[in-house]
Amino acid sequence: MKGRTEISELGEFGLIDELTKGFRPSNATTLEGIGDDAAVIEASGDEAILVSSDQMLEGIDFDLTYFPPKHLGYKAVTKGISDIVAMNATPQQITVSLGISSKISVEFLREFYSGVEFACREAEVDLVGGDTSASLTGLVINVTAMGRARKEKIAYRRGAKLHDLICITGNLGASYMGLQLLEREKRVLEGVNDPKPKFDGYEYLLERYLKPRARYDFVKTLDEENMVPTSMIDLTDGLASDMMQICKASKCGARIYLERMPLARQTTSLAEEMHIDPVVAALNGGEDYELLFTVPLSEKERILGLGCIDIIGHITSEESGCLLVTPDGGEIRMKAQGFKEKE
Amino acid sequence: MKGRTEISELGEFGLIDELTKGFRPSNATTLEGIGDDAAVIEASGDEAILVSSDQMLEGIDFDLTYFPPKHLGYKAVTKGISDIVAMNATPQQITVSLGISSKISVEFLREFYSGVEFACREAEVDLVGGDTSASLTGLVINVTAMGRARKEKIAYRRGAKLHDLICITGNLGASYMGLQLLEREKRVLEGVNDPKPKFDGYEYLLERYLKPRARYDFVKTLDEENMVPTSMIDLTDGLASDMMQICKASKCGARIYLERMPLARQTTSLAEEMHIDPVVAALNGGEDYELLFTVPLSEKERILGLGCIDIIGHITSEESGCLLVTPDGGEIRMKAQGFKEKE
Repeated sequence: MKGRTEISELGEFGLIDELTKGFRPSNATTLEGIGDDAAVIEASGDEAILVSSDQMLEGIDFDLTYFPPKHLGYKAVTKGISDIVAMNATPQQITVSLGISSKISVEFLREFYSGVEFACREAEVDLVGGDTSASLTGLVINVTAMGRARKEKIAYRRGAKLHDLICITGNLGASYMGLQLLEREKRVLEGVNDPKPKFDGYEYLLERYLKPRARYDFVKTLDEENMVPTSMIDLTDGLASDMMQICKASKCGARIYLERMPLARQTTSLAEEMHIDPVVAALNGGEDYELLFTVPLSEKERILGLGCIDIIGHITSEESGCLLVTPDGGEIRMKAQGFKEKE
Repeated sequence: MKGRTEISELGEFGLIDELTKGFRPSNATTLEGIGDDAAVIEASGDEAILVSSDQMLEGIDFDLTYFPPKHLGYKAVTKGISDIVAMNATPQQITVSLGISSKISVEFLREFYSGVEFACREAEVDLVGGDTSASLTGLVINVTAMGRARKEKIAYRRGAKLHDLICITGNLGASYMGLQLLEREKRVLEGVNDPKPKFDGYEYLLERYLKPRARYDFVKTLDEENMVPTSMIDLTDGLASDMMQICKASKCGARIYLERMPLARQTTSLAEEMHIDPVVAALNGGEDYELLFTVPLSEKERILGLGCIDIIGHITSEESGCLLVTPDGGEIRMKAQGFKEKE
C-alpha cells in the first residue's frame, strides 16, 4: 500500500461513500441497499423486510463508569430498532453480538441481558441470535435489527419535496444534556470514596441518555392515521446532521426555525446551569432517537391534530441549501457532525 | 450486583444458554430463534429469510501483523455467509460494520473493502449496509448475513436421526495449520529487518486460513440433486465441537472414525514438520468453513456418487455419547472447545 491517508481527512460520511461506491446490488431481492437507515429486502409481493446493523464500542459510545449494564442492554436494543422505525416499519427481530473483555463478569452480562429482554418485551421484538466472543480490549456490542412493512408504507430519506413541512417527534437535546451531567459528576467525584453524584431535578435527562425508547409508537400512530411521511430519519447524529442527510438524499434544501425547536424544561435548565446553549445541544447533540420527517403542506392540520408533533421548518430548493433561521431572521448554514472521536 | 463469577466458569456455550434462556419469540414471523447457525424469518408462504451475525475482533480472531487487509475483508464475508450456507440456504445480502482504531488508514480500508467486494461478487451477495465508527482499541468487524430458502429445504442442526451417515465436504485442519505456519514465521522473524517468511510448499494452507471460501457451491449441488440433509452445520469451531452441537440439538450420539478424516497432503506434511498430530488439528482447529451434515443411510450411494464428500461416521443413540473411534478400535469421548482466548 502506498502512502497513508488519515480517516479524519475524509470524514465519516465521505469515508462511507468512498468505500462503498463500487458496490451495486445484483440480487433482485435487494430492493434498497446502502444509503438509508435500513436496507430493504423482498419478503412477498406486498411486504418487505428491513435490516440494519449498529455497533456500540466502550469508550466511544458508552462509559462503564456510570452506565448501568441493564440500561446499556436496553439502549442497545433501542439503537438497533430505531433504524427500522425510521423507515416507518415495525421492528420484529434483533440479534445481539458481544465482544467481552476480561473485566466483564457473568453478573454484568445477566444485568445487560435483562435490559435487552425488557426492551424486547416492551417493543414486542424477538432476540433471535448473536455471537459471543472474547475481546482483548473493551466491551463491543453489535445489534442487527429486522422489521417488516408493506412496501407502500416505507419512508425513505429521499422522498422530501419542495414546500413539505419538516416535523419532529418529542424534544431535542435532552440525551446530550444527560450525558453532560454524567460526565460532570464523574469529573467532580473522581477519586472520592463512596461518591454521591447530584442528579436531583434532572432525572428526565438521565433517562433520555441512559434508557431512551425508540418511537415505534409513532409508526403505529402513522398507520392508524393512514399517513406516510414523504421522508423520515431517526435523530441520532444531531438535528443538523440528520436534516442534511434527508436533504442530500432528496436533493433539496431546508429552512429550520430555531425558535420552534422543541426543548424540555430540564434541558434548558441544566444548559443554563452549565453555560451551554440549549439550541446547540439540540442541533449537534444526537442520540435523541426521535423522528425527523416531512409531510406535504396539505397535511398541516392533520399533523398538528396529532398533538405530539412540532413543525420546525419546511423544504426548499437544493440551491437554497440547509439553513437555520435565528429569531431575528438571520440565516446560519448547517454543518454536519464528523467522525466523532468521543461523544 | 452481588459477587462476581468469571465467564470461564461457565464456558462460552454455557454462557449463551444461560443468558438467553428467558427469551421466547413473540412474533409469528420468527420461525426459528436462537440456537442454530442462523435465525429463520417468514418471507412469504413457501419461503423464509435467514439471518446470522458474526464478529471478528483484532487480537482474538486475526493478527494484523500478517493478515493482509484484502484477505481480511474476504474472510469476513466468508464467515458471515457460511452460517447461511449451513442452513442449506442461498446467501444474498450482508452488512459490514467496522470499529476503526487510529492506526487504520484509508488505504487499509480500501484494501479491506476490495476484499469484501471480491467475495461478494464471487458469491453473488449484495453489501446492503453497515455502521462505521471510531474504536479506541483494535479493529472490530461485524458481519450480518442474510439468505433465502424454500422452507422445506432448510437444514437445521436438530434433524439428525439414528443410523444417519455423518458426512463432510472438503478436508479438515488446513486452516489451523496455515495459522500455525503464520504464527511460527512471526515468532522467528520478530525484530528482523526486511523479513522473508518461508511459506514454500504450504501455499494451500495459507489460502485456507487467510482466504477461505464458504461452500455455497455445495448448496447448489444439493439443490440440483434434490437432496436435503437431515442436519447440517458449518465447521468453524473444530469437528468435535460442531459434531457435539448437532448431537445436542438432535438428542443423539455419534461415532466418528479417525482413519476416515479427510486431510490435505500439505496439512499432514506441515503437521509432521511441526510435531503436531494432524488429527488434533482437524478435530480442534476450526475455521474450516466446510460443511458437516447427516443423511439417511439409504442415501449412501448418492452421496458417494457426488465424488466430493467423505462419510466419516454415523449417528448413534443419545446414551452412547459422541465418540471418536481410533484405527485400533479404541473409543475417545469428544470434548467441546471452550471460550477461546486466542485461536
